[in-house]
Amino acid sequence: MPTLMNAQRKSHMKNTKNSRNKFVYFFGNGTAEGSAQMKQLLGGKGANLAEMTRLGIPVPSGFTISTEACAFFYEEGKRWPAGLEKEVNENLRKLEAQMGAKFGDRENPLLVSVRSGAAVSMPGMMDTVLNLGLNSDVVQGLIVKTENERFTWDAYRRFIQMFGNVVMGIDHDEFEHVLEKKKKLLHVEQDCDFSANDFKDIVRQFKKIYLEKTGEEFPQDPIEQLHKAINAVFDSWNNPRAIKYRELNSIRGLLGTAVNVQSMVFGNMGNDSGTGVCFTRNPSTGMNQFYGEFLVNAQGEDVVAGIRTPEPLDGLKKKWPDIYKQLSKIRTRLERHYKDMQDIEFTIQEGKLFLLQTRNGKRAAQAAVKIAVDMVDEGLITKQQAVLRVPPSDLNQLLHHTFDPKEKKEPIAKGLPASPGAACGKVVFNADDAEAWAKKGEQVILVRIETSPEDIGGMHAAEGILTSRGGMTSHAAVVARGMGKCCVAGCGDLAIDYDQKMFRAGSVKVKEGDFISMDGNVGEVYLGKVSTVPPALSGTFATLMKWADQFRKLSVRTNADTPNDAKTAIKFGAEGIGLCRTEHMFFEGDRIIAVRETILSETKEEREHALAKLLPMQREDFEGIFQAMAGYPVTIRLLDPPLHEFLPQNQESQNEMAEAMGVSFERIRDKVASLHEFNPMLGHRGCRLGISYPEIYDMQTRAIVEAACHVKKKGIKVQPEIMIPLIGTAGEFKILKAGMKRVIDEVFKEQGITVPYLIGTMIEIPRAAIIADQIAQEAQFFSFGTNDLTQMIFGYSRDDAGSFIGTYLKQGILESDPFQSLDREGVGSLIEWAMARGRKVRKELKIGICGEHGGDPASVEFCHEVGMNYVSCSPFRVPVARLAAAQAAIKSKK
Amino acid sequence: MPTLMNAQRKSHMKNTKNSRNKFVYFFGNGTAEGSAQMKQLLGGKGANLAEMTRLGIPVPSGFTISTEACAFFYEEGKRWPAGLEKEVNENLRKLEAQMGAKFGDRENPLLVSVRSGAAVSMPGMMDTVLNLGLNSDVVQGLIVKTENERFTWDAYRRFIQMFGNVVMGIDHDEFEHVLEKKKKLLHVEQDCDFSANDFKDIVRQFKKIYLEKTGEEFPQDPIEQLHKAINAVFDSWNNPRAIKYRELNSIRGLLGTAVNVQSMVFGNMGNDSGTGVCFTRNPSTGMNQFYGEFLVNAQGEDVVAGIRTPEPLDGLKKKWPDIYKQLSKIRTRLERHYKDMQDIEFTIQEGKLFLLQTRNGKRAAQAAVKIAVDMVDEGLITKQQAVLRVPPSDLNQLLHHTFDPKEKKEPIAKGLPASPGAACGKVVFNADDAEAWAKKGEQVILVRIETSPEDIGGMHAAEGILTSRGGMTSHAAVVARGMGKCCVAGCGDLAIDYDQKMFRAGSVKVKEGDFISMDGNVGEVYLGKVSTVPPALSGTFATLMKWADQFRKLSVRTNADTPNDAKTAIKFGAEGIGLCRTEHMFFEGDRIIAVRETILSETKEEREHALAKLLPMQREDFEGIFQAMAGYPVTIRLLDPPLHEFLPQNQESQNEMAEAMGVSFERIRDKVASLHEFNPMLGHRGCRLGISYPEIYDMQTRAIVEAACHVKKKGIKVQPEIMIPLIGTAGEFKILKAGMKRVIDEVFKEQGITVPYLIGTMIEIPRAAIIADQIAQEAQFFSFGTNDLTQMIFGYSRDDAGSFIGTYLKQGILESDPFQSLDREGVGSLIEWAMARGRKVRKELKIGICGEHGGDPASVEFCHEVGMNYVSCSPFRVPVARLAAAQAAIKSKK
Repeated sequence: MPTLMNAQRKSHMKNTKNSRNKFVYFFGNGTAEGSAQMKQLLGGKGANLAEMTRLGIPVPSGFTISTEACAFFYEEGKRWPAGLEKEVNENLRKLEAQMGAKFGDRENPLLVSVRSGAAVSMPGMMDTVLNLGLNSDVVQGLIVKTENERFTWDAYRRFIQMFGNVVMGIDHDEFEHVLEKKKKLLHVEQDCDFSANDFKDIVRQFKKIYLEKTGEEFPQDPIEQLHKAINAVFDSWNNPRAIKYRELNSIRGLLGTAVNVQSMVFGNMGNDSGTGVCFTRNPSTGMNQFYGEFLVNAQGEDVVAGIRTPEPLDGLKKKWPDIYKQLSKIRTRLERHYKDMQDIEFTIQEGKLFLLQTRNGKRAAQAAVKIAVDMVDEGLITKQQAVLRVPPSDLNQLLHHTFDPKEKKEPIAKGLPASPGAACGKVVFNADDAEAWAKKGEQVILVRIETSPEDIGGMHAAEGILTSRGGMTSHAAVVARGMGKCCVAGCGDLAIDYDQKMFRAGSVKVKEGDFISMDGNVGEVYLGKVSTVPPALSGTFATLMKWADQFRKLSVRTNADTPNDAKTAIKFGAEGIGLCRTEHMFFEGDRIIAVRETILSETKEEREHALAKLLPMQREDFEGIFQAMAGYPVTIRLLDPPLHEFLPQNQESQNEMAEAMGVSFERIRDKVASLHEFNPMLGHRGCRLGISYPEIYDMQTRAIVEAACHVKKKGIKVQPEIMIPLIGTAGEFKILKAGMKRVIDEVFKEQGITVPYLIGTMIEIPRAAIIADQIAQEAQFFSFGTNDLTQMIFGYSRDDAGSFIGTYLKQGILESDPFQSLDREGVGSLIEWAMARGRKVRKELKIGICGEHGGDPASVEFCHEVGMNYVSCSPFRVPVARLAAAQAAIKSKK
Repeated sequence: MPTLMNAQRKSHMKNTKNSRNKFVYFFGNGTAEGSAQMKQLLGGKGANLAEMTRLGIPVPSGFTISTEACAFFYEEGKRWPAGLEKEVNENLRKLEAQMGAKFGDRENPLLVSVRSGAAVSMPGMMDTVLNLGLNSDVVQGLIVKTENERFTWDAYRRFIQMFGNVVMGIDHDEFEHVLEKKKKLLHVEQDCDFSANDFKDIVRQFKKIYLEKTGEEFPQDPIEQLHKAINAVFDSWNNPRAIKYRELNSIRGLLGTAVNVQSMVFGNMGNDSGTGVCFTRNPSTGMNQFYGEFLVNAQGEDVVAGIRTPEPLDGLKKKWPDIYKQLSKIRTRLERHYKDMQDIEFTIQEGKLFLLQTRNGKRAAQAAVKIAVDMVDEGLITKQQAVLRVPPSDLNQLLHHTFDPKEKKEPIAKGLPASPGAACGKVVFNADDAEAWAKKGEQVILVRIETSPEDIGGMHAAEGILTSRGGMTSHAAVVARGMGKCCVAGCGDLAIDYDQKMFRAGSVKVKEGDFISMDGNVGEVYLGKVSTVPPALSGTFATLMKWADQFRKLSVRTNADTPNDAKTAIKFGAEGIGLCRTEHMFFEGDRIIAVRETILSETKEEREHALAKLLPMQREDFEGIFQAMAGYPVTIRLLDPPLHEFLPQNQESQNEMAEAMGVSFERIRDKVASLHEFNPMLGHRGCRLGISYPEIYDMQTRAIVEAACHVKKKGIKVQPEIMIPLIGTAGEFKILKAGMKRVIDEVFKEQGITVPYLIGTMIEIPRAAIIADQIAQEAQFFSFGTNDLTQMIFGYSRDDAGSFIGTYLKQGILESDPFQSLDREGVGSLIEWAMARGRKVRKELKIGICGEHGGDPASVEFCHEVGMNYVSCSPFRVPVARLAAAQAAIKSKK
């Protein structure tokens, strides 16, 4: 199957083919042809090796083959581009000269390491090959030179093993098996217990394996070794693991991997040698302390392999204070130079320190915030830089409960990380039980195949929600994110049996009342209890957010349906409500009865009678929200979902409803049948209901405006913004607005006061975006409902798209899930069109976004770029949006 | 409820308010202030009265109050605009002077008629008021003047009756009741049997009724009478009947009605008087013969009332040859002047002929065609004008079987006129029975609650399809139109009982095997047999279509899925296939088994195995179609519908399928469940299936290209155009195109020849339209799938929108059903955007439309205007589209 990536790479190549001919960049002895700025070309590792060399930091000399060479390698059917071989040979000679050693030389051999290194750190690619340059001849010379036979044979066997595995693809186990057998034979436990002769024998056996598996003798010519290793690095760029990694991390547009060929230094040359890894600050907490570990007489791979337990850096300080001092100076030097926390690899060969790598260190969210803020205090970076340093989505980890990292468990199932946080509770299988158990003080997890609006109460009562079906934008996911509840959705591993009140996850059976835990950040479900730790929003977090607020241009509002949500959001920094969905209120308590009466009504009068019962309840909701928002604008969306969502869909519940309402079962069944739609997404909902049954919107408008008047009378400022959903034509808006104005004027008259208000609309139907100029003639604000807009512009039902979106991402048809990150090309273009047309007609038109995208950093950046006034997102995403908005503003200023 | 119409009118007013002040236009004595060109301002009737006066045709003098006056009347809260009263009085004085009579004068009274008349003929508005100006005094004078006491009292009672009913809204029956009682009392049968005294008494009684019902005396002041009558005409513009009529006929943008005040002439002044109506040609057949009827001693209303049977015009010729001669001259004069067939009203008063009205006559479709063609032959009009004369949708009547108009019946039920034509047959309730009965030679009507793709075979076998659910674009409707089968859909009057094999329509019960008939042009269902007559496509029809073809720029293709459809379409003038849906082929015969095997497959290999069985069948289909189209381009759409459409949805059928395929019921049930979608319209279908299961499109591509090669080898030209449905991203197209090219090249190699082909796409997802430039880089043609495009741009599911579209049309939110007539503002804008972007990238991009709109005249006009290459529609709509395309081309040249 062809992929898009090839096409992208090709077009990139065309631009660069003629402008450059140099493929190899030398570094060593304090000078380098490359620099840290050349990451795209030299990869991160290569660029930093060059940079460190330039800084005078001791780095073993070597050279880097550019990523462009890799691209041409693929371009030309896996052959080296013209000129590369010559350049490699020239640089090899230069390296030999500098090191005073010669490749393949018996007397004074040059050994090198070969490593991959793309512009972006990519664990999927080729491992390192060390000790390249050894052969049966060279071994002899090296023994003489190092006076260490055991080390030399060990080095040789390591080389054959790595080369065989990494370059030639021989199964790792083939070699390990030899080592195991040997250990058993000799009754020893570890590799380091082998003698020189043992290793010599092992080398013999390894060569035999090599011959058997490859059909060739192990190459004795170091140049051949080098060429093969370079090719293996190139090949590894497109191995399945690397492709998968790029897919998962949306890494695109890179040319390929660079290849770093570097003279070897040995940490395993005896007890005055060693190797280590360190961070310039603590990567978990962000504390400004030198943090790392090292091993005496070991090569880097020994640290990684975990056979011996490394010592903390303090041990180094005691053991070799001079080296520690040198390293500490380098630590400071590098941090001051790179102005970021560094992740450093070093090797000590016979008492001499070499740096093998430096790169910006990965860090936990908490550490990222602390380091950024501390570095501003230390004068290392500006506040803008600090704000840019923290990936907004990392904040999710700080805003929710998290599991104690010490209590790691094996998941019993894995689903989609639908709403972040950690939760633990007893399993229940329906919303009523969730509410009942919670009332008794139990912590519960609500487990459903999928949720529906009827489950809202139970979702609220639960610690977390787990569903076996539905995607990132399923009902469960959307509502849970809104509530800031942990949710794992679409967990296909679960076989849920409502009748038996149990589910199976593989071989594990979980019954009602059993404890489970789940991590909404990664989508994992665990059996039993796992302790959680609460979020801390003060300190450096607060400082960083304060800075973010200084830089951002976008206002950040929240989607909130209750006073509680509103309060949470204010705590997180929301500056208003961008979306208050009135229908969620319809499910609380006895309201659903009045709602259902409304739906069952056959005449306008019956409907008005039923709606009159809802009026005081809705008014009360709005009063609570207005008070909680204390003067911030509150955008309230009138009734949106199709009416059938308020009726029970199965016979049993319909019977219950009939009994409760004193009507016949048939009447309810027939109503449900008459409301059935083939594509409810595209059906009788939103303002279409408002046109069909104007009394519904009349009641809601009255409730909003009465509430606003009441709250204003208490001396609290109110700014209601009434939003009509699903507008597709100017006519709908005109008619509904006229009806609303009539009600509003009535209420003002009755109440004896007025409140300022706006009437605007969701732009969520493509047609509304297309004719935005017509709509802006009447509407005072636009709020882009990008969930529905995405559904209709793509023609994807978000409830169903799971069946193909995975394939689309994998094949590169989609760069990201358009329900998670706003599609700039399609949805974005239409938004820009609509904004331009809307503002042409009404300059002061207030424009925002209230879909799920309002909390997605990339989408927030888009909203900033096109000049919206605000974004609105779920309460727990407010800080994410604030930070993303600040980053967008800073970036666009650059 | 406010309506849009008000707003529209208002904005119209603003443009005209200041530029004009004249409200009244005089005509009489050979000169007139108005003319035929002033229809918008004077209404059709007023404009033509003025025009006839100018032509020197004897018309009773009078004046016309403009439609603008009516608009201002509403604008100013139902008051006359300033200046109107003065103008009316001036014109009245002018009229008096010209007629030598005086309004309200006892000696020589002026009597007038008052009639409404909008720019468009509108039967819903106010009826005529005749004899205005009579009062108790004037009656006396008129008796003296006419020497006819009986006539005068009859005229007075008629006036009171009309004025009371039409102007004051008194129930007609109140007056009729008096007449009936009087007849009984006098033992007479008809009004004309009353004596002068009888009428005098009737006048007395009528005045009493008037007083009782209105609380006022019958107005004696002729000026008051006139003002009230004028107001009544203005009021009638917005009476419910008139509003309804405008709604039903999509009449918009008019200012209001004009009021015609004209001096009275009397056809009931004795046996030398009379009145009549005639057409300058036969309105049913179009024959060039003077055609009409008249009544001696009668007023116009007597002709309409149908109490006395009028005589044909030949009677007039014999009775009053001079008058006939004069009338014949006028007939010729008017036709030559208006260059169209005229509908004329005349009155003869005491041997003197007066023309009261002329207008373009309504005519049957057949007559429209003949008159247009004849008038070209007669040198009256150009071919272009002839082509413009026939409403394209009228052709529907000519292309299908129709009921013999003599056999009129009462419908037992009424549904939507979903597919034109007339059909008659025995009722069956499922597709299998339809096929079985048809095989036995029975004519059947397939009656279903709704149809699904599984019913295709039965639909084909049936004479017509009747459904109780679904709209104009339901499956039944779309497929029936495609087949040219009569269909009445959404016939909610039917209660269908599949178990009992019967349906009820009101009190009528119809069992399986009973005969019913139905008329797809009007949506009516009748009990029993009604004879039908076949269409005639030769003669003047063929001539007109030939001319149309000369003028049109758009190519017209057809939507056809079978060789049979293709042949029909060619007969109707199709120049290619614009949409060949491959999935309909999947239901024929045993194919569905292989299709289901494909769907049940768990692996690619299983799927390929099942698809291999389908390959020869699909190839055969395409060979048949290529042969039938004999060199015309054939656009074949690859598989489009979601897979679940190919599986049975109910348990019984699933069981049958399991048995037939030798798999477990559970496997099928689970597959159906796993394919279930919440919004199948936005689900896993179209090219999304092609991406998920490339082997399906591979098979279809192979079938198409193999068929093309085979047919080419027979010496027949082939032009396959392979169309990928539901493209939303450039990536989908690139990947699928690459796969198709691979298969095509394989086939060419195997077959040893090549055929020219195109690969293009449906543009039916809004996103595809937005990024059309990207898609055009790869696609060789665009075919706008405006059904889906409309669904997604509006967010309307066409299966569900019936629940609110009616309300939307009524309230003026929508001007027309966007599924019937393409929405220019929304859908149209995006199409223009997409065309511009597409052609920018690929100049020669072929662009067409293949939605239902391809056969809608207004939509065809749009397609011409924006510069598409072709439209494609169902076979029976091809002539409609050809004519519409020609009209669009002629109009745009003007």
